[in-house]
Amino acid sequence: MKHPFPFSAIVGQEQMKLAMILTAVDPGIGGVLVFGDRGTGKSTAVRALAALLPPIRKLKGSSTNAERPEDQPDWADPLSGEVIEAPTPVVDLPLGTTEDRLVGALDIERALSRGEKAFEPGLLARANRGYLYIDEVNLLEDHLVDLLLDVAQSGENVIEREGLSVRHDARFVLVGSGNPEEGELRPQLLDRFGLSVEVRSPDDIEERIEVIRRRAAFDTDPDMFVKKWSGEDQIVRDRILAARAQLAQTDAPDDTLRDCAGLCVAIGSDGLRGELTLLRAARALAAYEGSNVVTREHLRSVAPMALSHRMRRDPLDDAGSSTRVMRTVEEVFA
Amino acid sequence: MKHPFPFSAIVGQEQMKLAMILTAVDPGIGGVLVFGDRGTGKSTAVRALAALLPPIRKLKGSSTNAERPEDQPDWADPLSGEVIEAPTPVVDLPLGTTEDRLVGALDIERALSRGEKAFEPGLLARANRGYLYIDEVNLLEDHLVDLLLDVAQSGENVIEREGLSVRHDARFVLVGSGNPEEGELRPQLLDRFGLSVEVRSPDDIEERIEVIRRRAAFDTDPDMFVKKWSGEDQIVRDRILAARAQLAQTDAPDDTLRDCAGLCVAIGSDGLRGELTLLRAARALAAYEGSNVVTREHLRSVAPMALSHRMRRDPLDDAGSSTRVMRTVEEVFA
Amino acid sequence: MKHPFPFSAIVGQEQMKLAMILTAVDPGIGGVLVFGDRGTGKSTAVRALAALLPPIRKLKGSSTNAERPEDQPDWADPLSGEVIEAPTPVVDLPLGTTEDRLVGALDIERALSRGEKAFEPGLLARANRGYLYIDEVNLLEDHLVDLLLDVAQSGENVIEREGLSVRHDARFVLVGSGNPEEGELRPQLLDRFGLSVEVRSPDDIEERIEVIRRRAAFDTDPDMFVKKWSGEDQIVRDRILAARAQLAQTDAPDDTLRDCAGLCVAIGSDGLRGELTLLRAARALAAYEGSNVVTREHLRSVAPMALSHRMRRDPLDDAGSSTRVMRTVEEVFA
Amino acid sequence: MKHPFPFSAIVGQEQMKLAMILTAVDPGIGGVLVFGDRGTGKSTAVRALAALLPPIRKLKGSSTNAERPEDQPDWADPLSGEVIEAPTPVVDLPLGTTEDRLVGALDIERALSRGEKAFEPGLLARANRGYLYIDEVNLLEDHLVDLLLDVAQSGENVIEREGLSVRHDARFVLVGSGNPEEGELRPQLLDRFGLSVEVRSPDDIEERIEVIRRRAAFDTDPDMFVKKWSGEDQIVRDRILAARAQLAQTDAPDDTLRDCAGLCVAIGSDGLRGELTLLRAARALAAYEGSNVVTREHLRSVAPMALSHRMRRDPLDDAGSSTRVMRTVEEVFA
Amino acid sequence: MKHPFPFSAIVGQEQMKLAMILTAVDPGIGGVLVFGDRGTGKSTAVRALAALLPPIRKLKGSSTNAERPEDQPDWADPLSGEVIEAPTPVVDLPLGTTEDRLVGALDIERALSRGEKAFEPGLLARANRGYLYIDEVNLLEDHLVDLLLDVAQSGENVIEREGLSVRHDARFVLVGSGNPEEGELRPQLLDRFGLSVEVRSPDDIEERIEVIRRRAAFDTDPDMFVKKWSGEDQIVRDRILAARAQLAQTDAPDDTLRDCAGLCVAIGSDGLRGELTLLRAARALAAYEGSNVVTREHLRSVAPMALSHRMRRDPLDDAGSSTRVMRTVEEVFA
Amino acid sequence: MKHPFPFSAIVGQEQMKLAMILTAVDPGIGGVLVFGDRGTGKSTAVRALAALLPPIRKLKGSSTNAERPEDQPDWADPLSGEVIEAPTPVVDLPLGTTEDRLVGALDIERALSRGEKAFEPGLLARANRGYLYIDEVNLLEDHLVDLLLDVAQSGENVIEREGLSVRHDARFVLVGSGNPEEGELRPQLLDRFGLSVEVRSPDDIEERIEVIRRRAAFDTDPDMFVKKWSGEDQIVRDRILAARAQLAQTDAPDDTLRDCAGLCVAIGSDGLRGELTLLRAARALAAYEGSNVVTREHLRSVAPMALSHRMRRDPLDDAGSSTRVMRTVEEVFA
Repeated sequence: MKHPFPFSAIVGQEQMKLAMILTAVDPGIGGVLVFGDRGTGKSTAVRALAALLPPIRKLKGSSTNAERPEDQPDWADPLSGEVIEAPTPVVDLPLGTTEDRLVGALDIERALSRGEKAFEPGLLARANRGYLYIDEVNLLEDHLVDLLLDVAQSGENVIEREGLSVRHDARFVLVGSGNPEEGELRPQLLDRFGLSVEVRSPDDIEERIEVIRRRAAFDTDPDMFVKKWSGEDQIVRDRILAARAQLAQTDAPDDTLRDCAGLCVAIGSDGLRGELTLLRAARALAAYEGSNVVTREHLRSVAPMALSHRMRRDPLDDAGSSTRVMRTVEEVFA
Repeated sequence: MKHPFPFSAIVGQEQMKLAMILTAVDPGIGGVLVFGDRGTGKSTAVRALAALLPPIRKLKGSSTNAERPEDQPDWADPLSGEVIEAPTPVVDLPLGTTEDRLVGALDIERALSRGEKAFEPGLLARANRGYLYIDEVNLLEDHLVDLLLDVAQSGENVIEREGLSVRHDARFVLVGSGNPEEGELRPQLLDRFGLSVEVRSPDDIEERIEVIRRRAAFDTDPDMFVKKWSGEDQIVRDRILAARAQLAQTDAPDDTLRDCAGLCVAIGSDGLRGELTLLRAARALAAYEGSNVVTREHLRSVAPMALSHRMRRDPLDDAGSSTRVMRTVEEVFA
Repeated sequence: MKHPFPFSAIVGQEQMKLAMILTAVDPGIGGVLVFGDRGTGKSTAVRALAALLPPIRKLKGSSTNAERPEDQPDWADPLSGEVIEAPTPVVDLPLGTTEDRLVGALDIERALSRGEKAFEPGLLARANRGYLYIDEVNLLEDHLVDLLLDVAQSGENVIEREGLSVRHDARFVLVGSGNPEEGELRPQLLDRFGLSVEVRSPDDIEERIEVIRRRAAFDTDPDMFVKKWSGEDQIVRDRILAARAQLAQTDAPDDTLRDCAGLCVAIGSDGLRGELTLLRAARALAAYEGSNVVTREHLRSVAPMALSHRMRRDPLDDAGSSTRVMRTVEEVFA
Repeated sequence: MKHPFPFSAIVGQEQMKLAMILTAVDPGIGGVLVFGDRGTGKSTAVRALAALLPPIRKLKGSSTNAERPEDQPDWADPLSGEVIEAPTPVVDLPLGTTEDRLVGALDIERALSRGEKAFEPGLLARANRGYLYIDEVNLLEDHLVDLLLDVAQSGENVIEREGLSVRHDARFVLVGSGNPEEGELRPQLLDRFGLSVEVRSPDDIEERIEVIRRRAAFDTDPDMFVKKWSGEDQIVRDRILAARAQLAQTDAPDDTLRDCAGLCVAIGSDGLRGELTLLRAARALAAYEGSNVVTREHLRSVAPMALSHRMRRDPLDDAGSSTRVMRTVEEVFA
Repeated sequence: MKHPFPFSAIVGQEQMKLAMILTAVDPGIGGVLVFGDRGTGKSTAVRALAALLPPIRKLKGSSTNAERPEDQPDWADPLSGEVIEAPTPVVDLPLGTTEDRLVGALDIERALSRGEKAFEPGLLARANRGYLYIDEVNLLEDHLVDLLLDVAQSGENVIEREGLSVRHDARFVLVGSGNPEEGELRPQLLDRFGLSVEVRSPDDIEERIEVIRRRAAFDTDPDMFVKKWSGEDQIVRDRILAARAQLAQTDAPDDTLRDCAGLCVAIGSDGLRGELTLLRAARALAAYEGSNVVTREHLRSVAPMALSHRMRRDPLDDAGSSTRVMRTVEEVFA
Repeated sequence: MKHPFPFSAIVGQEQMKLAMILTAVDPGIGGVLVFGDRGTGKSTAVRALAALLPPIRKLKGSSTNAERPEDQPDWADPLSGEVIEAPTPVVDLPLGTTEDRLVGALDIERALSRGEKAFEPGLLARANRGYLYIDEVNLLEDHLVDLLLDVAQSGENVIEREGLSVRHDARFVLVGSGNPEEGELRPQLLDRFGLSVEVRSPDDIEERIEVIRRRAAFDTDPDMFVKKWSGEDQIVRDRILAARAQLAQTDAPDDTLRDCAGLCVAIGSDGLRGELTLLRAARALAAYEGSNVVTREHLRSVAPMALSHRMRRDPLDDAGSSTRVMRTVEEVFA
């Protein structure tokens, strides 16, 4: 696979870039939904993420990217125990992927040649400790989205089919792009994504020209273009690593918890996933900005992406959901 | 599988916790339906149950958790006869579980390698003498719910397919969570669940903050959090064991039977499952509270969970079904 | 399988019990449909039947319950010829039974291991000379009900599939329970059941208490409860055996035939199955009551169960179909 | 298979019996459709036909009932050439017959054991030179009815599937029973049946009693009943054999052809199948009655069964189609 | 297969007979659609065509009817090279033909026995250089008609399935019969048939009688009837052969091209298939009539069959499409 | 495959011919959609393209048309490394192509014979570095079009199914023909085609006659006709090769970028694919015309084909989308 367009060279789209950075700091925030019209560079952005992410340490040969021998599932073949550095996995769900390749399945080759019922891990195993990207997630069948969210949330892939009964770690961030014009996700699925952002084509002519210019430069000589932007990408990468180390020491005072709860009650989100996500995203942002305490400013910055897909639609209010979330934030914080 | 959130640390949700405790005292009460909006911690609660339940004694190696050699089905491989203590099984039905993994199927490996038609037990065997949990039971196909309720009620899994004709014990409590916004269960299925409870997000800000605080504490250091609450869990576990021993000696006088019948006639429940369940649940509660006779107070406590899903809908009455059951109880007991 | 609830201990439900007894006297009467709301003990009653029925004599090892060597199908493996006594078969169609297990299918094990195309008999073979019970027959696919009624009526199971072309005796009484709230049977299917009865929850409080009391007693100590009622069951069993012996000697005078025809014309039943069934049921009742001639009283007793499902619906008449049949009987017999 | 109810003992139903006799005289007339409410003995009548038909002469062991060695298909195993007498085949299409058993299919047993691609003939082969009976033909899928009519008309079964490319004679009379209440046949299918008759339950009480009496006598002692009626059946069988011999010598003068054409124009039947069938049926009747020339009286007798299903429906005319055909006959012949 | 009804003995139906003759002269004209009510002898006519057509010269043993060694596909087994004379292939698509038998498929027998991936040609191979007949083409699935027209037009069958990637010549004339009452063909499919004709039952009584008389004569003694008409058939066959030889020398002057284009513009047919077909059909007719130049009279004769299915429907014009085509011809030629 | 109709001999259809030439100069422009009524020669034109295209250099035996050893995928068998010249691949998707033949699949032959799980490349591999043509792309299932566009855009075919996990280069230009009368493509798919053109039957009689004349000449003697036009084809081929060499040196000044952005904003196209495609197509045209800078004239020439399928429909504007694009160009450039 050739080198993708550099993350830092993307013109604008700040919310989307921030959402991806936050999940890199704390994957426990959950998946990211990227909404936008066709042609707005959603796929480009997600593919750019792959080149940005810091490497992971893993057991050499582990099909589930296990870090320590005790993380290696019992059904897998034994390993040497050698630890290597590898890129953070970014798995792109190809169109037409079958459920068995996704969750794993009976290893037909071994079944036929050796008469053994062995498990052959699928894409969920390969995505462990990384990202799983689905283009046009709203076109995927509901039961597959459900399954992906379920695994992403529990961090474990449990397989009970074809006479197999196995499990393995599957902690990954699900990133889905969607086109609001082509059918919507059920609210139940929406709620299970941690963050959501919207991308738009720039209205500004100069910004459009800049996009074309950078794209043409990349098309003409990708290597030089990537090299030119690698410094910018490295800065982001370093800040993510620093933030991860900082995360456990970032305090969330009781006032912050109260702000989270108050915001979610005001916004009318169902259940408690709203405040839990808001808190985690704000804490990740604090850490990314080098702060050791979560402030209202952090909550303000992440509230739109954490809450706008959890707000009930208001047919009498024309404002977009991000705007309505920000308006509510100001009322609650007033 | 890592340790789940402790049962006792769940904030509020008293009806749900009581329903689960009663089925642990007397599994004959039947399944439990947990209704609630998304994000209200239904899954968390059911997973918490696993850590609470007392252990069982079983034959080592028995795929159906048989307690005595005579309970071991004839199609199974012979065992040593050694008896061990094991956790009460709590089987979580993974999304996409196929019917053959649920009820069991032809053992393909043995068929291919040895040409034998052997039975490979499924999840129903593994759930014997324990719990079977289905998330979003209303999304499961009707015929599978039907099958599960049928097996749960008869206590036996009878398989007639793929040329197999086998049976084994399958006594388990079915716990299903459901989201009333996503399609309802047919009344016929509703009636076959023993108890039903509803869970809601807390309206009270302080209670919400407490939920976030405990959750954040658990996320930060699960081991310490679990340890902190293990004492509370042990108390509940001990009371369940005591109640089981007490159950057979708990009397239900004729007045209690008359109360049960009177309540069900007043409430208009179809058939006689209402009074039979009400009586069993009240008896289990009496035993759990250390009483050796069932009183009106016990009936009063369990009537909402035993009867509210058996009451016909009244379009002219806005009150929730629990409220209407309690109102009827007061009229009948007046 | 543990001992079911005793037939005689069922409170009320006289029509249903009589219908079952009559088909035990003369299986040629055809199937029985049991209608009723959920929770009215339909399944309990049918399972109780199993313990009541007299034993049959059969060739040891016969998969079709053949009585004499000449009844044994030619595709079956040879037997020793020894005759044994066995319980009357009562086969319970488990949910999810596949058509191939019902009618029988190619024996895969023999096909794979020995390359032979042998027939493996299914549930219809096992039900020969007994009962086949289907819970919620109205939920079964029409083509399967059709197939079952076809086999039950012809007394023979003819298989033409998967390259197989075999047949065997399959004389059984089909008992189906149905819930009128969940979709109805097509009139064409209704007509092919011999008898139909309706069961209801008792309205009377004392009767309800008696049901709860007996059920609680059975749940607490099944063995003692069954023993207590075994004498009553034995009396019914003995009367059935006596009636069978008497049946051929029970006369149906021409006046009885004329009454049958007159009743069916008055009731407007299609075809002639109405009078043929009415006559057989009345003759079986006469024999069960020890009478050697069929009288108007016998016709009167069985007319509702033989004719009510054959009467056209009358939207202007609110009375139940049983009441309307009885009213017509009185007019015709006046 | 036990002996069916004797053909001659059927009370009334003269049109249906005549239609069956005519197709026995000249199978080229085409199939017979028997319409009627449920319970009118349609199946009984068709099964009675089996016992009535004269035997055929065939090569011993021929799976397609070949009469001469040159009729034996080239894909079949070689035969001894011995000729035997066998009953006229009457094949009853069992419910759930698969298309491969109907038309024949790859012989799996030989494919697996010997690696040969041999053809295993199906029910169409077995029905060659006889009858194929389908109960409730209107419930059969259209494409199967289409296929059956196609084969019946061409007299040849051509198989092009599963890599097979074989053909064999399949000349048979298709008899279908139908219930007009359960969906109708497409006009295109109707037109391809040669004859159609309608059966009804008798309105007359004495006739009904006679039906019950004969049926009860048959149920009580089938052997004696069959013996009692065998003489009547033999008379019909002898007349059929005589008519077959006579058929080629039975003239149809030009006036008869003109009557046929005139009738069909008056009746408005599509195409020319009407007059061709009318002529063949009238000629068969003439031969059955020992006449060597077809007269208007013969046309008058068979016109309703040959034409009533070919007449367009007239919403302004309440009369049944048979009545309307007879009325038209009188107008044309006037 | 027995001898079909002779082509020349068909009463009337001149348009249909001419259309078939023209495609025999120049198969490049494309397929023929025969519309008509049921029972109008469409199938009889097409089957009659088989006996009329002149023989072809082909390599002995060629499964694709190859004429020269270089036409033999490379996947086929080697041949001796001997050339034989064989009847023009007329392949009748049996009902229920599967797509794999139509286009060809993996040779299962060789795959199983020898582990080779060989191609087994289907009906399209057998129809090469001949006719493929589909009864009730409007009942065939659209994608199959599409496929057939595609192959017929390109003259090549390309198979890309089951791991096969082969091709072979498949030049044939597709003849489809259709019943306008049973669903129509999509205009896109209509347009891809070269010619279309309509057949009707004769209104004239004498003509009907003649049909019945000939049919009865054929049914009584097919051999004599066929012999009687063989001279007529031979005359048609000889003229076809002469016309083929003449075809390349038949000129179409510029005025004829202008007439073709003018007619198609006037008629409003889409695209240019109208004029191309019209020209070829007229040229074939000229050759059949022994003329070496195409005249307006030839165009006039074939315009209805070449253009009527390409004319847009005019809801205000009751006239049949043939009549409207002829009217337009007169206007354009005026 | 016989020689197709020469590209240069196509009468008119200049837009379509230009679009194909431009994608031959720069395949990165993306696919081409050809709209038009039936019979307008869409298929002929695309097939003509095959004979026009310049040859490619590839490794002998490479199933993916790899140019250099490092382009050869790792799952493929080793090659000699010899480089040969081969025609530019033009793969025609046959009707009924299965998804596994398209993307490639498990090599069944090797799996069965050698027990290896090898990949067998499909049509996407064969189309690498060439063209893939789909007739009536609007009739293809959406998910297949989606898949094809996805692969065409990413230039890589990623397979995750049947236990396979392989990838290979698949850079090709997708050419789809469509009939606007038969269902439309979803806007999302439209947008992913680079260019779109519309073809019509000529209205001019002389042009129609010329079409018929050339077609008749080609039908009569294809070899001579092709030879006659080969010079014209060679000129186009040479210009394409020259343009490819020139492409990298063709400048697009900032004013051109501004024009592109301005046009797309004016036209209201979603996203940025509009301007990116417009720029590439204009640059390819400049190179084809031998110019080393992109001018407004180049933009003007390609704007209709690059933008008309990206313009929102305007129900109040009757003009075709090409006309509206050209009108907008004049307004923006004014």
